[in-house]
Parts: sequence; C-alpha cells; structure tokens
Amino acid sequence: MRLTTMTDYALRLLMHLGQHRDRLCTIAEVARVYGISEAHLMKITHQLGLAGWIETVRGKGGGMRLAHEPVQINLGALVRSVEPDFFLVECMASGSVCTLTGECRLTPVFSAALDAFMLQLDGHTLADVMPPLRPRAKGPTAVALPAPTRRPLR
Amino acid sequence: MRLTTMTDYALRLLMHLGQHRDRLCTIAEVARVYGISEAHLMKITHQLGLAGWIETVRGKGGGMRLAHEPVQINLGALVRSVEPDFFLVECMASGSVCTLTGECRLTPVFSAALDAFMLQLDGHTLADVMPPLRPRAKGPTAVALPAPTRRPLR
Repeated sequence: MRLTTMTDYALRLLMHLGQHRDRLCTIAEVARVYGISEAHLMKITHQLGLAGWIETVRGKGGGMRLAHEPVQINLGALVRSVEPDFFLVECMASGSVCTLTGECRLTPVFSAALDAFMLQLDGHTLADVMPPLRPRAKGPTAVALPAPTRRPLR
Repeated sequence: MRLTTMTDYALRLLMHLGQHRDRLCTIAEVARVYGISEAHLMKITHQLGLAGWIETVRGKGGGMRLAHEPVQINLGALVRSVEPDFFLVECMASGSVCTLTGECRLTPVFSAALDAFMLQLDGHTLADVMPPLRPRAKGPTAVALPAPTRRPLR
C-alpha cells in the first residue's frame, strides 16, 4: 500500500519551502536538495499552485513559496488534493467491474479504514512534520554562549 | 493510495472459497466468475497456500478450499501477509534515500495513520465482508413455504 510519488514529492517540496520562508525557491534547487527529477517537480509544482498551496513568481529571480504558513497547511487536506485516488480495492472505484460489487461488504470496511487513516493526517499540519530549523551553532550550550567566545582565539 | 491487485484478488478469491465451503474450487472457475487473469490467480493461490490461508489438492478433481472458517480469517492479518509493503512515503522503506530521512517527522505521522487503518481491518474477518449466501428461492415468504407448495401444479 503506497501513496503516489507525486504526493511524496509534494510533501518534501512543501517542507523545503517551509524551511525557507524568507525567499523564493526554485525547482532546480529542490531537485538538487532531494536528488529527484525536475520534470516530476514541475508537474507537482503546477498542481500545488492550482490547488492554492503555493505561490509562484515567474521570470528571472522568480521561484515559489508557500501560500500559507506551515501551521495552516493541513496534511489530510493536502494528501486528498494531491493523491489521484483512494481506490484501495477495485470496488471503491465508480467504474468497478468486479462481479461482487454491491453484494460483498468490502467497500464499507475499507472506507472505514481509509477514514481512520485520514483522520490521523487531519490532526497534523506541515509544521508538525517539518525538520527542525538548524541552529547556527551546535552543542547544548551554544545558544547561551556570548558572541565573543565564538571569535577565533588570538 | 491503493492496495496491490494481488491483495484485491486474494480477497475476492477467499470470498469465493468462503461461499463454496462444501467443495474444492479451481483457478479457472474463480477466473471466470470474476473475469480476471488465471496467471495472476495462480500466483496469489501459491502465496495464500504458503501463508496457510488456503489448502490445495493436486491432480484430477483437485482444487482449493479455505484452510479455516471465514470467521477465523482476520482481514488485517490477511492484508499484512499478502501486501508486499506499506511504504506510504519513501522514508518508510529501509533503503530510503530521501535527504530528510531521520530529520523530518513524516514517518511517525504516516505510521500512526497506517496503524489506525490496520486497526479497522483487524476488527473484521472474511465472514464480515462475504456476500450473503443466495437463498434457493426468492421472495420474503419463500423460506416459510411448506415443501408441497413447491411441487408442480397438477
């Protein structure tokens, strides 16, 4: 059982944009960071733009950014808008040709399981899953250190 | 988000066997009933036999039957044994190459969603999803009719 690569890439792309809220990011940059295809990213960027998750700026110096704060981007809503379908078994599709369609009770059982799955995602936002922003200096005492101690020793 | 065709076919195959507990069923018969490929069914039959869900009898007059009563076949256990993996997003696979692996918090969120999904299936057995066995005669009073009324009129 898998989500499509498109949804996987959409999540990664949005996490990257969430980590760089102060500037526009490019497809080339995201492709390089994750080592994934620019062509796939172009497709997903277009889809995320249409769905209103990101804003794009064209031309030289252009790029993309989140259209909302990470805490406003609900994971359930995002996955529903990107994933092409949730036909776990064939009878969940409208054009099902299974001879049991309408007779067996597989659809309600899998629909309930899918609802339980989505309910979990509905309880999280992009902010919950983003990697923590890296501190400029490492170590448990780094934040408390006064600026002069980070100067080179003379 | 989909389960594989193998799991879909496994569920249908077991439902058919559950409806014909009094005899051995053949792959050709199941393929004909559902209009699906014999080659796919052979593969899934082999897998279901190895996993102990069905028993097969070789040779002329042979076939397959459920190894347990439908009420003993748990849907969660069945899906776990047939579905190749549950890598909803790439970072759930052991060989993940995503540069965020171990940094973002996507894995625990999707793992919790998957647990909620499987918990629903764990609460059902094959008996819950099987189509109702067809009555020999239709109509609300058919069962109550005494035997003589079904004889041809003289």
